[in-house]
Amino acid sequence: MAKKITPRNKDYSQWYNDIVQGADLAESSGVRGCMVIKPYGYAIWEKMQSELDKMFKQTGHVNAYFPLFIPKSYFSKEAAHVDGFAKECAVITHYRLKNSEKDNSIVVDENAKLEEELIVRPTSETIIWDTYRKWIQSYRDLPLLINQWANVVRWEMRTRLFLRTAEFLWQEGHTAHATKSEAIEETEKMIKVYSKFAQDFMAMPVVMGIKTASERFAGADQTYTIEALMQDGKSLQAGTSHFLAQNFAKAFDVKFTTKEGKQEYVWSTSWGVSTRLIGALIMTHSDDRGLVLPPNLAPFQVVIVPIYKTDKELNKINKVANDVKLRLEKIGISVKYDNRDTHKPGWKFAEYELKGVPIRLVLGSRDIENSTIELARRDNLEKITYNISNIDNKVNEILEDIQKNLFNKALSFREKNSFYVDTKEDFIDQIEKGGFVYAHWDGTSETENLIKQKTKATIRCIPLDSADEQGYCLFSGKKSERRVIFAKSY
Amino acid sequence: MAKKITPRNKDYSQWYNDIVQGADLAESSGVRGCMVIKPYGYAIWEKMQSELDKMFKQTGHVNAYFPLFIPKSYFSKEAAHVDGFAKECAVITHYRLKNSEKDNSIVVDENAKLEEELIVRPTSETIIWDTYRKWIQSYRDLPLLINQWANVVRWEMRTRLFLRTAEFLWQEGHTAHATKSEAIEETEKMIKVYSKFAQDFMAMPVVMGIKTASERFAGADQTYTIEALMQDGKSLQAGTSHFLAQNFAKAFDVKFTTKEGKQEYVWSTSWGVSTRLIGALIMTHSDDRGLVLPPNLAPFQVVIVPIYKTDKELNKINKVANDVKLRLEKIGISVKYDNRDTHKPGWKFAEYELKGVPIRLVLGSRDIENSTIELARRDNLEKITYNISNIDNKVNEILEDIQKNLFNKALSFREKNSFYVDTKEDFIDQIEKGGFVYAHWDGTSETENLIKQKTKATIRCIPLDSADEQGYCLFSGKKSERRVIFAKSY
Repeated sequence: MAKKITPRNKDYSQWYNDIVQGADLAESSGVRGCMVIKPYGYAIWEKMQSELDKMFKQTGHVNAYFPLFIPKSYFSKEAAHVDGFAKECAVITHYRLKNSEKDNSIVVDENAKLEEELIVRPTSETIIWDTYRKWIQSYRDLPLLINQWANVVRWEMRTRLFLRTAEFLWQEGHTAHATKSEAIEETEKMIKVYSKFAQDFMAMPVVMGIKTASERFAGADQTYTIEALMQDGKSLQAGTSHFLAQNFAKAFDVKFTTKEGKQEYVWSTSWGVSTRLIGALIMTHSDDRGLVLPPNLAPFQVVIVPIYKTDKELNKINKVANDVKLRLEKIGISVKYDNRDTHKPGWKFAEYELKGVPIRLVLGSRDIENSTIELARRDNLEKITYNISNIDNKVNEILEDIQKNLFNKALSFREKNSFYVDTKEDFIDQIEKGGFVYAHWDGTSETENLIKQKTKATIRCIPLDSADEQGYCLFSGKKSERRVIFAKSY
Repeated sequence: MAKKITPRNKDYSQWYNDIVQGADLAESSGVRGCMVIKPYGYAIWEKMQSELDKMFKQTGHVNAYFPLFIPKSYFSKEAAHVDGFAKECAVITHYRLKNSEKDNSIVVDENAKLEEELIVRPTSETIIWDTYRKWIQSYRDLPLLINQWANVVRWEMRTRLFLRTAEFLWQEGHTAHATKSEAIEETEKMIKVYSKFAQDFMAMPVVMGIKTASERFAGADQTYTIEALMQDGKSLQAGTSHFLAQNFAKAFDVKFTTKEGKQEYVWSTSWGVSTRLIGALIMTHSDDRGLVLPPNLAPFQVVIVPIYKTDKELNKINKVANDVKLRLEKIGISVKYDNRDTHKPGWKFAEYELKGVPIRLVLGSRDIENSTIELARRDNLEKITYNISNIDNKVNEILEDIQKNLFNKALSFREKNSFYVDTKEDFIDQIEKGGFVYAHWDGTSETENLIKQKTKATIRCIPLDSADEQGYCLFSGKKSERRVIFAKSY
């Protein structure tokens, strides 16, 4: 029984939900706003974690772990931060339950009220900087380059699997530096790491840029972002890196002795990506048949399906299939051989198409006789029969081609959906249609807010690589030095 | 400035704290009962995770992720479970803070009270079985072999770093099976996986056994445990695997259709180990000089320290040291070359001894001339000078020897501290002195409780491999079929 996927042009949002559910990636739980990440979805996250973790370590970072709970008062210490994060959050007020005196249920024990409420971390700057005060005394203790893999909670009212949930998984880097320029260098280095990861592993082209003041992280002096264009023409913020200046060092009184013996506040950064990336991955590549996975992040890159009538036929096929599997694994390709007799080949074809497995190999009795094997690509749905003797190299080649093809397809989609507009009417019209809209803006929050109210579009970023260009703000008519990207967003 | 370690025979508990702090493993945080796991301690946990995860996957398990929060009512569904876990826990009652009307602080918004309180998971059986109800319909959906890496919270009143903290990191396996015998087989398989991990990676001998009814997991019909003897003669429960029978399936109404078309409740298991293992690792091998790490779990297995006076000397040494490092890395050995000029060699020697790095290599100018290198073992403190040409193989050999030696030393310690006693007086005397005390027990909870009250000792386990032996309970005089292990414990 094939699961049905709503076509994108019929109902994009339903299409997304159908993919998440149909490909067994995640589901809603009995706890409002919290998701269950199912094994296949989690396997993608594990791949992402493993690659990112390598990149973090290659750039000199180490992992550590800080408490899940943050005392309420910590939030009040950084003025901008408390407004951004301490409001919608999970608040722990008690530490004990007891049997009800009235009935069979259990109730909160009012005698076990905390003196100070604890907040489930929405992000860890405060608890980490409270800790760094003890770790940093001298310039010798710097830089401190630490990352944490963790769960965080933000009490979102409208949730969508992977894209916006109350609890989600992420990593958060928190670094401490002796100088401003070193901290800025780190902020930029990490947004580049994210960009490289998005492009090389997710096959997802991104625009690197900086956020306007109103879109900045609460507590940052500068926020760098990578923005990706989804298939419905909306932008998705896929990762951010924040230059926090001395804001948290001042809030938590973290000073160090310089080489010259002076006392100075420490400079800092933080940066993160989350399970939201899985949502971005889905909306970048998938089609109306289901999920499409780039080989570099697929839980298994190849599935082999046998076609047989008798056990005798299956035995012969098993032998060849297991040999192919071994040969592929030997060159580092991950393979699943699905010879379960509980499901028909047609069911398996549909299942692995829905799950986005990059390559399907099919082996029948005729193939065994002819020493052939049929290869089907998930990205372009091509089917070709190859001689089996060289199939390992062929698969390797095609996996690389799929990875490139997915990136190029996404890039060409973005290029086709990037627009340079120069009048207010064109702007409003294009924002409604979707895409990245490059336009001049006068640099003020007032105009930014006005545009947001009028069109629901926000400035996604001021691209790092865009050229200087004299122009006039489409809304205020004031002078502008360069274009910024407007779009509706997730 | 060397950090001081209190000797074990002076104050064992202070010795433990000194090691945890001195070796930079963890520290208390500003949040009551929650620890910060520092980078060096976390690196040991990452090694443990990576090896365990491989073993779980080799035995057919996959990872997934379930919500951090559990609705209060879920706990009431399994009678034994609620008593064991829902009492001392972190309770979320509100989901918003607001600015105080009185002063500058932020306060709980009483308008944002949850209809039903949420509990921060102390263990995930309830939320997972609420989910499994949707995943399991037919025998085709079984077995379900899932593991989760997560943080959990138990509101402990007396906490010790790694050994007992309010929040800790762990993995919890939750499996579902069609038959009782399959579930029991899984329970036993996983306690064997833990035992193998403890012995092969932690170099820590363990006794496998089953818990008595009063020491069982709340909700289990049978709990298997691995118990390790610490240097102070106390036992540490290092991992448990629970046969949950149909208890959670009944509580959450999880039935499946058998091959024969009947509806039956699912059988289940759960099993877990936690960051507590780091505490066990410390107390198994470390000495009065600091941490001692088995090579198989050391964040880096070898440290190279240069001894030089001039920059010219250092340049020469750098060249040779980097070459040695490369050669070692080529055969899979992890190496740190510490040529920082901010610290003297003596400081470095003390630091890496304290941190338990298995092998230290020292290179001076004389060594360069003679093509030699000095090797110091952390386990037995031996120092030998070797010719540099074959040092990679030598190091490899010695690492294996250290791993074996640590295990044998711990095993011999346990053997010397395992006692067979046959009178009440000897029992009380030996329990006071410490060690594993093998004694006859009549099999009743009454006697077990009596002994606990009298001596503070509990039955650590009924060992799986102990022989049948007729005897009489030391306290009640009733008949007994085999000896059980008594000890004081962590």
